[in-house]
Amino acid sequence: MVTEKIKSIISELQQLHYKSMYLNDFLLTWEKSDDEVQATFRVAEILRALRQKNISSRVFDSGLGVSLFRDQSTRTRFSFASACNLLGLAVQDLDEGKSQVAHGETVRETANMISFMADVIGIRDDMYIGKGNTFMREVAQAVNEGYLEKVLEQRPTLINLQCDIDHPTQTMADMLHLINYFGGVENLKDKKLAMTWAYSPSYGKPLSVPQGVIGLMTRFGMEVALAHPAGYGVMPEVEEVARGNAAGSGGSFFITSSMAEAFEGAHIVYPKSWAPYAAMEKRTELFGGGDSDGIKALEQELLAHNAQHKDWECTQKLMSTTHKGSALYMHCLPADITDVSCEEGEVEASVFDRYRVPLYMEASYKPYIIASMILLSKVEDPADTLNQLLVSGAARIPK
Amino acid sequence: MVTEKIKSIISELQQLHYKSMYLNDFLLTWEKSDDEVQATFRVAEILRALRQKNISSRVFDSGLGVSLFRDQSTRTRFSFASACNLLGLAVQDLDEGKSQVAHGETVRETANMISFMADVIGIRDDMYIGKGNTFMREVAQAVNEGYLEKVLEQRPTLINLQCDIDHPTQTMADMLHLINYFGGVENLKDKKLAMTWAYSPSYGKPLSVPQGVIGLMTRFGMEVALAHPAGYGVMPEVEEVARGNAAGSGGSFFITSSMAEAFEGAHIVYPKSWAPYAAMEKRTELFGGGDSDGIKALEQELLAHNAQHKDWECTQKLMSTTHKGSALYMHCLPADITDVSCEEGEVEASVFDRYRVPLYMEASYKPYIIASMILLSKVEDPADTLNQLLVSGAARIPK
Amino acid sequence: MVTEKIKSIISELQQLHYKSMYLNDFLLTWEKSDDEVQATFRVAEILRALRQKNISSRVFDSGLGVSLFRDQSTRTRFSFASACNLLGLAVQDLDEGKSQVAHGETVRETANMISFMADVIGIRDDMYIGKGNTFMREVAQAVNEGYLEKVLEQRPTLINLQCDIDHPTQTMADMLHLINYFGGVENLKDKKLAMTWAYSPSYGKPLSVPQGVIGLMTRFGMEVALAHPAGYGVMPEVEEVARGNAAGSGGSFFITSSMAEAFEGAHIVYPKSWAPYAAMEKRTELFGGGDSDGIKALEQELLAHNAQHKDWECTQKLMSTTHKGSALYMHCLPADITDVSCEEGEVEASVFDRYRVPLYMEASYKPYIIASMILLSKVEDPADTLNQLLVSGAARIPK
Repeated sequence: MVTEKIKSIISELQQLHYKSMYLNDFLLTWEKSDDEVQATFRVAEILRALRQKNISSRVFDSGLGVSLFRDQSTRTRFSFASACNLLGLAVQDLDEGKSQVAHGETVRETANMISFMADVIGIRDDMYIGKGNTFMREVAQAVNEGYLEKVLEQRPTLINLQCDIDHPTQTMADMLHLINYFGGVENLKDKKLAMTWAYSPSYGKPLSVPQGVIGLMTRFGMEVALAHPAGYGVMPEVEEVARGNAAGSGGSFFITSSMAEAFEGAHIVYPKSWAPYAAMEKRTELFGGGDSDGIKALEQELLAHNAQHKDWECTQKLMSTTHKGSALYMHCLPADITDVSCEEGEVEASVFDRYRVPLYMEASYKPYIIASMILLSKVEDPADTLNQLLVSGAARIPK
Repeated sequence: MVTEKIKSIISELQQLHYKSMYLNDFLLTWEKSDDEVQATFRVAEILRALRQKNISSRVFDSGLGVSLFRDQSTRTRFSFASACNLLGLAVQDLDEGKSQVAHGETVRETANMISFMADVIGIRDDMYIGKGNTFMREVAQAVNEGYLEKVLEQRPTLINLQCDIDHPTQTMADMLHLINYFGGVENLKDKKLAMTWAYSPSYGKPLSVPQGVIGLMTRFGMEVALAHPAGYGVMPEVEEVARGNAAGSGGSFFITSSMAEAFEGAHIVYPKSWAPYAAMEKRTELFGGGDSDGIKALEQELLAHNAQHKDWECTQKLMSTTHKGSALYMHCLPADITDVSCEEGEVEASVFDRYRVPLYMEASYKPYIIASMILLSKVEDPADTLNQLLVSGAARIPK
Repeated sequence: MVTEKIKSIISELQQLHYKSMYLNDFLLTWEKSDDEVQATFRVAEILRALRQKNISSRVFDSGLGVSLFRDQSTRTRFSFASACNLLGLAVQDLDEGKSQVAHGETVRETANMISFMADVIGIRDDMYIGKGNTFMREVAQAVNEGYLEKVLEQRPTLINLQCDIDHPTQTMADMLHLINYFGGVENLKDKKLAMTWAYSPSYGKPLSVPQGVIGLMTRFGMEVALAHPAGYGVMPEVEEVARGNAAGSGGSFFITSSMAEAFEGAHIVYPKSWAPYAAMEKRTELFGGGDSDGIKALEQELLAHNAQHKDWECTQKLMSTTHKGSALYMHCLPADITDVSCEEGEVEASVFDRYRVPLYMEASYKPYIIASMILLSKVEDPADTLNQLLVSGAARIPK
């Protein structure tokens, strides 16, 4: 991308209203205004363009990004580490196994103890309905108080790296991929996106991706279909968000129990397994009561349920029913690929293989989205800072 | 803090004699002169003020801080990481589980192998009486020899992040908190500090905090009381240190078996559980002999002993007997809070809650104390370096 | 080392042909030309000299070094972290236990997902014959495709931190040690080096060190002897490499089943345990078939075999048969030292102790060798970059 193009994106950024992102958190996309969402995309694109031109975007002289992963992760972990590094922050992992968090320490206490020099805290906590996002807000409130009480020199920003409700770093990366794939956000108007359930031999996958997708993609005038078998519904409040967004953006949102109906004429398909909301609520209750036998029984029950819907697979045949037979296939990865990673899964290998490069491209936006979220929350005048990076043009690697 | 104030602290620093801290370790506070202790406080305060003013204190262009934790840790781990980051060092953890240390490698060998580019090594080894501090000295000697033998380009500095004898990064942070809370070290003269044992349902907490407190706080003219039930004595040699310090500083030091006597009229109280010294010595012997049944039996015996002293709790009633009923409550955290983290513990929830902000403030000094120890041991002319940081005024985050 | 000396090494570097190292990997030393091997030594020496003079060699403004260790490691892990830090890269560990790699994700996918901002990937994978080096090449190919597909902004360089075939960071460090110990590569001509098997009570040590040593040390005109008991042969293709190298360099290579013959008149001895190649191949097959009972039986069989060769020990008596009774003793560490780390091992304590300083010096080259490999693969004009570092002379630590 040429310098003039970067300058013009910086100019676009300057037209947007996003001041309230400064010193604020990023927990749910629907808490952000349209301008704030757009600012996040602009900054991500500028950061990517700077890197492509080997221009340093190290805006922090020093500082820490703290990560707390309560679930396994490769790509989100590396994306967070990459984003921190791109901006000049060092990552410090809060490994609860190695810490004293378990010894009856309160969230408020831990949050302050890890934040004396933290600029950002990224949390992944997606295992229990009603818990993850709540925990993030407790941490945010604790460090806010710590800052007001002058215990902390700075208030670290919270970034949701996946919770029980939303997965904003994933869906914002997905959306930026769509914008670039279709050549501009204006080209997404009236495009049909099918967010559909798909069969997986594993159990209990989080709902945050389908919820995050319907909560975000409905803001751009698209026709968004959510498809799942009966009983696999997502959180009703997020469906409400999607309906409201669609009404506001001139798009539409509907729910169907037919994968075929969702795929029919779709420009974009996102077939992915998730666990039923109601079952996940029950699991949280059982967990709260320490009922591990109950959890095991529920797991067996859910696997049996899943097995009734093995026909929910993204096949070549289904793909041929999409717009011109060539809808863009999306996934947050890793996918359960039939005959590759499992016997029967979410997608046929031939479909997955054909979309391998766009899938990797989709994932490649995540570090830039996270870096954008950090920069917008920590730097007082992002457009000015980005412009200075461009003008100074310091090389990241000597050439 | 205004720039003039920082300049004046740098001037005070220039008056102190602390040259022998350069290229030296920080293992026990009582091995440091009064001027060296004061220099550590001054540098910590300057670093904190620079950060508050968003001025970079990144003095290392590159370099490694190696950490070795032989016990769980959240706050000390994050404090060490924060201190390293503040100065420009990257942290590399020596995780003995992932390493080959167990395979009969000697301390001398490991110490050299991890130090080829290490500027500082922070060690926490507080589990066995007679072991932790000895291990740190073995490492210090090994890297000293490695440096003299030209195997190492630099001699890494050792920092005691808690051993069997002392916990200098904790107690120095505690002391800096006292200095600021009471408005200057001169106001501590004749203040009464009660370092008292308190009941906890857990077993075998290290002695390093009470020992470190009586070994440091007796140097400032305070009246220091050490209170514990019969049989819960600390290392006799540290009691000797405390007696000598008190004599030299015009303060006093006494031991009592009455919590009430220690609290009576105290300006500062530090109630905390620890294990009896004699029992910890026995435990080290049993461990050395591989007698795991003996260790289990000892553990039960100690828990039974502890249970006889549940009345050693920091209650509101006891607090009302302190100076004006409002002594400063201190703790290294996490505390065992009655009805919060345990049924019966070290402190009543109402007392703990009232002191939450000062407790967090107390903890907040630790990263700066560690950074100060590193800077004083690695930079040849700290006052000049700090002055240059202030004058150049490079922003840590762009504003 | 004086500045003039550094300048002269930079001049020597400029005479060498090593352009194809740029954007390339370092997987086997015998894939590199003589000039490329020499360039690696030159850059390592320059980096060491800069550090000794407290001159920063931080060439990366930001960037990630990803490490993947599939086997325990202390010194290689720290060497990689040190090398990255020396050049300005942050390390991000790919801990497969914490990641989703096991969930049927492909190597191609994982390789791309961790590489969005990776400049270098260091891999240790030495457990299974036929697997480690193959895995590295799969990763290299995957990121190459990712770069060509524009998924990745840069193509990360692969560095072999030990595989089933070679251990280039170890043997290059070994060789640089020899060059400095004997006062120049020209003095190695006709020196005799004995790479010999030695008894160890443990089982299944990798073959990569003996293979790497005979594959590299035969390039410098030395007389290289490989000695091992019958049945403990290494990979035939590496023996071929050694034969070819010896022919090309005017040196020699021979295999003997007598430790005494190898030691006789040797200037350098490298006694070390390894597992028989044929047995390791069988183990890989058993592992592939999931035959854990078979693996256990093989282990017992191999330990029994080993025990028949306890006389393969580097004793003082054997050392006295070497050139002037004072051959240089080498080891990659940690060594199995008789009566120290085991009852009967690879080397007598008196021999090991006498060579402790040279052994540590040998190890000390590894971080510089790794940093050299990274710099030569990532910086377009290394000689110019190094010269600029020297001229600017930025201090690593303020003095």
